[in-house]
Amino acid sequence: MPFEYEKNGAAIYEESFRTIRAEADLARFAAEQEPVVVRMIHAAGLVGIERDVAFSPGMVAAARAALEAGAPILCDARMVSEGITRPRLPAGNEVICTLHADGIHDLAAKMGNTRSAAALELWRDRLGGAVVAIGNAPTALFHLLNMLEDPDCPRPAAIIGCPVGFVGAAESKDALHAASPVPNLIVRGRLGGSAITVAAVNAIASRKE
Amino acid sequence: MPFEYEKNGAAIYEESFRTIRAEADLARFAAEQEPVVVRMIHAAGLVGIERDVAFSPGMVAAARAALEAGAPILCDARMVSEGITRPRLPAGNEVICTLHADGIHDLAAKMGNTRSAAALELWRDRLGGAVVAIGNAPTALFHLLNMLEDPDCPRPAAIIGCPVGFVGAAESKDALHAASPVPNLIVRGRLGGSAITVAAVNAIASRKE
Repeated sequence: MPFEYEKNGAAIYEESFRTIRAEADLARFAAEQEPVVVRMIHAAGLVGIERDVAFSPGMVAAARAALEAGAPILCDARMVSEGITRPRLPAGNEVICTLHADGIHDLAAKMGNTRSAAALELWRDRLGGAVVAIGNAPTALFHLLNMLEDPDCPRPAAIIGCPVGFVGAAESKDALHAASPVPNLIVRGRLGGSAITVAAVNAIASRKE
Repeated sequence: MPFEYEKNGAAIYEESFRTIRAEADLARFAAEQEPVVVRMIHAAGLVGIERDVAFSPGMVAAARAALEAGAPILCDARMVSEGITRPRLPAGNEVICTLHADGIHDLAAKMGNTRSAAALELWRDRLGGAVVAIGNAPTALFHLLNMLEDPDCPRPAAIIGCPVGFVGAAESKDALHAASPVPNLIVRGRLGGSAITVAAVNAIASRKE
């Protein structure tokens, strides 16, 4: 006997979002933030993370305007760059991950840092006005914050900072949100990751649910 | 003032795994399962998921033997295939994702199913002895179970079945574990996803922490 299950992708999305809206406490989010949080919960499979989601003022508008103007999306990991749904991007935006670029191993060794942090050095000429999506490495987010300490470093339009894990993740996200060098979105604490980050990008990229 | 943080990748891994082992309840897992669960918790950033992890008997040994013999890894999503750490693979194993192959849209329409499910039809000639890693779509896991209802369908060596979400995820994983057509690993309930799935593959692929 074959297993029976819902096979309609649109129906699956609809039922998922309905379940999330019935279970999650979304009252404190502004109208443009709410669909972003719903997609983040969806990607995580976890009602409750909404308590740890924090937007800086104007974040969604800033990131959306940048994307509509053709800004590239700079990602710390291939799991982030590969997850972004290209048809949702408003301007055929470039999606860039430099983690596997030539010379990153050597650069990381020279910097005394991780490959994830070193990869950001290759972002400098694309960083101005870009949307940054960090969904894996706390060291990448910390290194970005240190790059932005330099007033001559170009400013991205917005940062989605959702690295995950047990060492530096919570600290790097708190540091981003406290310093807020540009509009940003974080999930406080250990939770985060590529799926949650991708969900935020996909939700901001298109108003279509 | 620059932000100070741990920049040594190996030290970050070590501290993360130490924290996980101090906090998580891993006592019920066999010796070969424990490092797999530790990596799954690490990827999720979430102590507690170990309660929902279930291995069928011999799963780790079966999957590891297959990989060591050169089996391909069949993935339902690019976020899974891209996350697998190639240097950890014991035999330069092929990592395959057919979700974006030509004709998948049309095939899905013809099948009345999702693209994720349709993509598995392109696995048939590689499925025998393969390691399957499903980290996104419940419909992919359900369709695989239905393919395996046919006794003429080749059997994979093992299935890592960790789709995530609110519709069909829990049900498809329970169905896999109850039927257990081949050795398998699941996370019960809504939690799962590409990061957890990738972590399981990476942990099984190499004994190196």
